[in-house]
Amino acid sequence: MARIVVVTPNPAIDVTYRVQRQTVGDTHRVLETTRRPGGKGVNVARVLDALGLPAVSVLPLGGASGEWMLAALHDLGLRVASIPLTGETRTTVTVADDEAHPTVFSEPGPIVTQAEWGMLATELRRQLDGASMLIISGSLPQRSDATLVESWVAEGHRAGVPVLVDATGDALLAGARAGAEIVKPNLQELLDTTGATAAEPGIRALLDLGARLVVVSRGVDGITASDRDRDYTVDAIGGVSGSPTGAGDAATAGLAAALIDGRAIGEALRWAAALGASAVLRPVAGEVDLDAFHLFLSKDTHTDGAEA
Amino acid sequence: MARIVVVTPNPAIDVTYRVQRQTVGDTHRVLETTRRPGGKGVNVARVLDALGLPAVSVLPLGGASGEWMLAALHDLGLRVASIPLTGETRTTVTVADDEAHPTVFSEPGPIVTQAEWGMLATELRRQLDGASMLIISGSLPQRSDATLVESWVAEGHRAGVPVLVDATGDALLAGARAGAEIVKPNLQELLDTTGATAAEPGIRALLDLGARLVVVSRGVDGITASDRDRDYTVDAIGGVSGSPTGAGDAATAGLAAALIDGRAIGEALRWAAALGASAVLRPVAGEVDLDAFHLFLSKDTHTDGAEA
Repeated sequence: MARIVVVTPNPAIDVTYRVQRQTVGDTHRVLETTRRPGGKGVNVARVLDALGLPAVSVLPLGGASGEWMLAALHDLGLRVASIPLTGETRTTVTVADDEAHPTVFSEPGPIVTQAEWGMLATELRRQLDGASMLIISGSLPQRSDATLVESWVAEGHRAGVPVLVDATGDALLAGARAGAEIVKPNLQELLDTTGATAAEPGIRALLDLGARLVVVSRGVDGITASDRDRDYTVDAIGGVSGSPTGAGDAATAGLAAALIDGRAIGEALRWAAALGASAVLRPVAGEVDLDAFHLFLSKDTHTDGAEA
Repeated sequence: MARIVVVTPNPAIDVTYRVQRQTVGDTHRVLETTRRPGGKGVNVARVLDALGLPAVSVLPLGGASGEWMLAALHDLGLRVASIPLTGETRTTVTVADDEAHPTVFSEPGPIVTQAEWGMLATELRRQLDGASMLIISGSLPQRSDATLVESWVAEGHRAGVPVLVDATGDALLAGARAGAEIVKPNLQELLDTTGATAAEPGIRALLDLGARLVVVSRGVDGITASDRDRDYTVDAIGGVSGSPTGAGDAATAGLAAALIDGRAIGEALRWAAALGASAVLRPVAGEVDLDAFHLFLSKDTHTDGAEA
């Protein structure tokens, strides 16, 4: 059966504090704390698991927070191949009230040594044997060289496994440069990374670097996919409101699941859009509303496939 | 040699995030993370240890964060008698930049079961054997009954050990009611707890409940101590600026150290003021500048002792 390997280079414990009202300079009693294993790749793996696709998460974990995370991933029934770190797995803190936008504090992540990255590469090679797809998702820890992403894409290709890179900045450029089958930034990440002022030249830059297909999620404007010959577009699912955090990760999982299922690109984009929208309906990143997913998928969503 | 038992009912990992600029609703990259074992009693124990006084911390610890905390306390060379919890030891997050006041998010702490409190009482009894003083410091976890404080004070008295309660609200009232030798709120805590609009009636209320001595730290207005017969006052150390977090805990340690050393109340207040000021000079709660402490102590600080 299809097995997907998901590399999360910089996993995090995602902590959410609900408070009465956020005010800079105040002391806040936290009314409710939620604590969940996070990082974009972990969200992707959770959604793949919800779809019934076996995914194995390859990720570095360290310290007491790494141990907590490993236990939490096991509690979720996820398969994990973790590399023990000397450093401490990071935490992100999101503060939410009923009035303002949530405030996020994102730790940069531990220093990962070359030896530890070497162990991750060895584990990745082992897991890629017989795998159907490699997904590399999320940021790199501080002071880690983006060429790591190139080396992971190369490991995928050596094993004959297609690679999807969902990252931004140098990691995204490295994925494109290494010839990833799919790179998947959102629009803002695409513009920030390439320095382009519109989507098309940004996409062109990534294709020119070597990416085979550039998938760009554009929020309410849907999702596009572009290779050297064609552009594909799918509309966003309308009328969905809720928590957009993790929607992009769910879309990545949908895209991967559809492609592994042998669907064409246009149909894969529809899966991505429907799964992204079904994640918006759930307050927690990494969770999706599967009933809504199937409902959205059954609707006659508008899909365009045009010669570029 | 004098041994001090410090009960910290609700210890916390104190995390500090330094960011460029705090803004509600923004996503902040954390520039620097510090993580240290905290809780008022832990700060007190660290300062006692710095003074060369052997202290043993009795505290409940649970989960991965409890394990981290235990390791961190051992790394600091502190003696710990911890009670394992099913719940997870809490975290406080302080966000700091160079402009605004720090913003604090304080988790309420785990649910501690009656059985777990029973284990703590058993451990406390064991540690009190031959001890010189019992210090009960800081808040209770959520849904914990303040009568716990009464029972701990009673354990101290049963062992013939004087008890100092540094708490607020119901826990402070419980300490007074149980006849603690010293209760030590700051002025705001005194007013909030007793509902008094000035210090004197608030102090009177605690004495009437049963406290033998009420010590009130008043920031720049110094520290007072009041029993049924007398009031003692010591001026604050002037010209000290820095980080006031933990200064009250250092003052508590100074007070305890002086009394165990056989000093009179007026002199003990001078130790408290000097040690509190020496904590302000250090950015981290639980640390003191011992050179500054001895310097402050050598100064001819003004002390008043008047018949009430």
